[in-house]
Amino acid sequence: MPLAMNREVFITCAVTGAGDTTAKSDKVPVTPKEIAEAGIEAARAGAAVVHCHVRDPETGAAARDPALYREVVDRIRSSDVDVVINLTAGMGGDLVLGGVENPLPLNDAGTDMAGATERLAHISDCLPEICTLDCGTMNFSVGDYIMANTPDMLREMGRQMTDLGVKPEIEAFDTGHLWFAKQLAEEGIIEDPVLVQLCMGVPWGAPDDLNTFLAMVNNLPESWTFSAFSIGRNALAYPAAAVLAGGNVRVGLEDNIYLSKGVFASNGQLVEKAVQVVEGMGAAIIGPDEVRKRLKLTKR
Amino acid sequence: MPLAMNREVFITCAVTGAGDTTAKSDKVPVTPKEIAEAGIEAARAGAAVVHCHVRDPETGAAARDPALYREVVDRIRSSDVDVVINLTAGMGGDLVLGGVENPLPLNDAGTDMAGATERLAHISDCLPEICTLDCGTMNFSVGDYIMANTPDMLREMGRQMTDLGVKPEIEAFDTGHLWFAKQLAEEGIIEDPVLVQLCMGVPWGAPDDLNTFLAMVNNLPESWTFSAFSIGRNALAYPAAAVLAGGNVRVGLEDNIYLSKGVFASNGQLVEKAVQVVEGMGAAIIGPDEVRKRLKLTKR
Amino acid sequence: MPLAMNREVFITCAVTGAGDTTAKSDKVPVTPKEIAEAGIEAARAGAAVVHCHVRDPETGAAARDPALYREVVDRIRSSDVDVVINLTAGMGGDLVLGGVENPLPLNDAGTDMAGATERLAHISDCLPEICTLDCGTMNFSVGDYIMANTPDMLREMGRQMTDLGVKPEIEAFDTGHLWFAKQLAEEGIIEDPVLVQLCMGVPWGAPDDLNTFLAMVNNLPESWTFSAFSIGRNALAYPAAAVLAGGNVRVGLEDNIYLSKGVFASNGQLVEKAVQVVEGMGAAIIGPDEVRKRLKLTKR
Amino acid sequence: MPLAMNREVFITCAVTGAGDTTAKSDKVPVTPKEIAEAGIEAARAGAAVVHCHVRDPETGAAARDPALYREVVDRIRSSDVDVVINLTAGMGGDLVLGGVENPLPLNDAGTDMAGATERLAHISDCLPEICTLDCGTMNFSVGDYIMANTPDMLREMGRQMTDLGVKPEIEAFDTGHLWFAKQLAEEGIIEDPVLVQLCMGVPWGAPDDLNTFLAMVNNLPESWTFSAFSIGRNALAYPAAAVLAGGNVRVGLEDNIYLSKGVFASNGQLVEKAVQVVEGMGAAIIGPDEVRKRLKLTKR
Repeated sequence: MPLAMNREVFITCAVTGAGDTTAKSDKVPVTPKEIAEAGIEAARAGAAVVHCHVRDPETGAAARDPALYREVVDRIRSSDVDVVINLTAGMGGDLVLGGVENPLPLNDAGTDMAGATERLAHISDCLPEICTLDCGTMNFSVGDYIMANTPDMLREMGRQMTDLGVKPEIEAFDTGHLWFAKQLAEEGIIEDPVLVQLCMGVPWGAPDDLNTFLAMVNNLPESWTFSAFSIGRNALAYPAAAVLAGGNVRVGLEDNIYLSKGVFASNGQLVEKAVQVVEGMGAAIIGPDEVRKRLKLTKR
Repeated sequence: MPLAMNREVFITCAVTGAGDTTAKSDKVPVTPKEIAEAGIEAARAGAAVVHCHVRDPETGAAARDPALYREVVDRIRSSDVDVVINLTAGMGGDLVLGGVENPLPLNDAGTDMAGATERLAHISDCLPEICTLDCGTMNFSVGDYIMANTPDMLREMGRQMTDLGVKPEIEAFDTGHLWFAKQLAEEGIIEDPVLVQLCMGVPWGAPDDLNTFLAMVNNLPESWTFSAFSIGRNALAYPAAAVLAGGNVRVGLEDNIYLSKGVFASNGQLVEKAVQVVEGMGAAIIGPDEVRKRLKLTKR
Repeated sequence: MPLAMNREVFITCAVTGAGDTTAKSDKVPVTPKEIAEAGIEAARAGAAVVHCHVRDPETGAAARDPALYREVVDRIRSSDVDVVINLTAGMGGDLVLGGVENPLPLNDAGTDMAGATERLAHISDCLPEICTLDCGTMNFSVGDYIMANTPDMLREMGRQMTDLGVKPEIEAFDTGHLWFAKQLAEEGIIEDPVLVQLCMGVPWGAPDDLNTFLAMVNNLPESWTFSAFSIGRNALAYPAAAVLAGGNVRVGLEDNIYLSKGVFASNGQLVEKAVQVVEGMGAAIIGPDEVRKRLKLTKR
Repeated sequence: MPLAMNREVFITCAVTGAGDTTAKSDKVPVTPKEIAEAGIEAARAGAAVVHCHVRDPETGAAARDPALYREVVDRIRSSDVDVVINLTAGMGGDLVLGGVENPLPLNDAGTDMAGATERLAHISDCLPEICTLDCGTMNFSVGDYIMANTPDMLREMGRQMTDLGVKPEIEAFDTGHLWFAKQLAEEGIIEDPVLVQLCMGVPWGAPDDLNTFLAMVNNLPESWTFSAFSIGRNALAYPAAAVLAGGNVRVGLEDNIYLSKGVFASNGQLVEKAVQVVEGMGAAIIGPDEVRKRLKLTKR
């Protein structure tokens, strides 16, 4: 079946992420208040969905304290802006080995392996409309680090999300993650309309060249909704790739902190750039209510 | 080899074409003066190259009178805008059959088959920096019509262009046209840096889905420079596709007369849209001198 | 949607074609008797379908005399072998231009342009189960030659085939031909289950690299049945490509006269090679009755 | 650049692997003697390279005792058959989590994490011509299991292999693994001619559809040599895919234990099937000396 351009596009803004970016750019939001405001700013700029992590308000380090998520969510919900809230459920799957000659015992500094229920504590507490499910295990560019999400963990987390009425957004960092997502769908753990984020160019997952991207898109079931992004050099260009391939757009400081070479971006500016590209391509930007309808989300 | 995004992009504006569009939109330029002004407007909006056909000033029908081309070229050259001039050499290859039960004799109304030298009369007269070479024979959507450019005709026209010092822009409307262009290069008829335009979505040539587009891009020799466009529904989106795949951009009223549904565009507006998309993607727009350097064009 | 390997494959043997091959290899059948015997030999070796052209019995040149087809068909039908008969309807669409400086008048030597009804005279006479429809206009490697099948001619021939109850086999030599076939299906001129032959590596149609091949396969509607072949260097390898991409196989002396470098093949040997590859890949070869059932053919 | 078929193909036979297959088929070799004999049988059938794991001679379970490798290697080297020896270096990277609610502590049953030097003890001892480097971290179909090879571990193992003069065979189970292999090459850790095995259809790595496979092949540097296989249903068909895409072939009981549905294969039979397909496609099978020359292997 041919790929067809998406003419009604929603934008997700991933406002802060878990990466070591707060030291590089002071535009990366850190406190719950800053993160909520970034989400509101992104929504005003055209994002229908805001994807949030939380950070230690003191250090800026990645965090997963449910109280922090609660504050972010409360602030966004009590604002005058309507936006679909999408919280990460990726935290708590961090393994760091002891080194190349002594992989075990694990390195305590950096290892954070939580059980499924604990990883979803903030999800059951905040009941966002969407939460993410990092659909596999892989290396990142950090030397001894593993993002660890085993098949059984993914099944259990997927089941809990579905039971909570929170739509899982499958994060597929490589072609095998997408394959496993189809397995989850076959097992009935995730339900139609399935939502998937193709996370391209994240070392050492799938590179973001168009051949690889299209191979993934060609493997998507027709009933699924997808979005895509790339980090780094091609981040600004990926909204175009996603739309051309029939998908939706994700931008934000989680994925890219630059507006142009050497110029730090705000979340709002990155959303504006995406709007500029998507509308320039002749597609329309859709809002949160339209997204809820398409993805059958339960608004709280 | 992976595809890499193009970060320094030139825009060609195809200002009028030969299609039956003047009756639909009064923004399509008809007289040499209008065509030249459209080219100047496009250049001011950011086009480095202007691709021109001429039309009968009275009827708006496609024409190939060298005097008309001469006037267009003189007007552009004597303006205060610098732009690379690219003239079509596609006229004079039109065959119309007599009908489905009596294909012969040919239908005189519509048939216009000229010899190679005659087809290039305006090229040898005006000496533009670039002229096009429609690199094959194919159907269009018109019932009994054939765009006829046989291998030997293409060899002869290519040779004459090279002898004139005018860079041929290969127009590849399908994968086989591109294949034959590589044959022309192998025979030494066209020379590096070869310039090719991937003409997508022109019925009944290559459709403009990304799989087909990438199959063509994957088949381009590394030393070649390419540009791409699609006509119709995806025209506004194709600048993004071209840049993502490593190429340059063509827009203009030859390919698409709409700015949005029901709203007629000017050439300048279409260039502006392309600039909006390309710059939004984080790429830079380059000008005529930079294009000349890369394509080793001879400015006259 | 992912591509899936075909595990039940039918083989078409194209026993003679219209090419200038009889002087090169004396294994290419020429007379109706030889052509029929070649078809029978191919069927015995495993071909479910035999695709026949006819030739002038004296000169070996391509021919389209209905009496020759009739003899071929009668001989095959009266043999003790069951095989689906597929006759070409490609003859009578040959245009040869007068030369590069004087394209018109047409060159009589070589030009053979017949009306739709005349092109199908042998089809209405012999009523084979399948006949081919060369779904476009293009150059071949011969200098001034055009294979001419305009949109209206294809519509008329398609209609007549459907009216005769003969299944058209769409011959797609490039991506645009496939696009037009989808147009014919949309217009109701050809009916499900549509049968298409992807004719790869025929200069100057689609090259036979896998990227281009998959782009075509990815564009096939799911309900269609396809087969594929390549001519020349990759002919022996293409049965594997076709099966991997979910299709069926065509081999035969029309496409390739060699068994290995410098060794001329018979049709039976080429079918045997294909059987060797297909079975070695773990797929089964299906026979004429199974093909009839799948394609809803009317046996006469 | 277009993909071109490989016309001179080498076959690797992966004779036993580490999987839980010995209980299913008694043709899977277990003892060093059986493994060596399987390698010799494969070489006689046409394999130029034999890829060996070892197993506990009593239980058939995967093992990594250097003495077992030594016996395998000695037996093959002292036989009258010439074959390139390729030993796995994949053992010792097995992590099993404690469960979905208590991922830590690790499950001792199944976890086997060794340091780089220990993982290569049998390589430095036996000095095979090739050893494998599983180029990433991923899930398999087993619930809580992780194949763990972090970037720093891969760098260290790669360095040690290169220092030993043993050619690493990169095992890429997904597109990100291939990307990291290119990083290793850029860092000078692995050297040209780089050898890579595309391991397709291993859940939950890259699926084996042709779009995904070609995306990986399109990303290979031109100077690299590759081979490919798929496990399970498409195993017998993948030699054809590999050759069509320009690569070499791997078969063997590690990847697939069936000759056809319900019929258990021997390693020799699987090699014979591959030879049947590859030769049927018109390609030649090359032997160990030719492989050594191309890959610049050091024979011991």
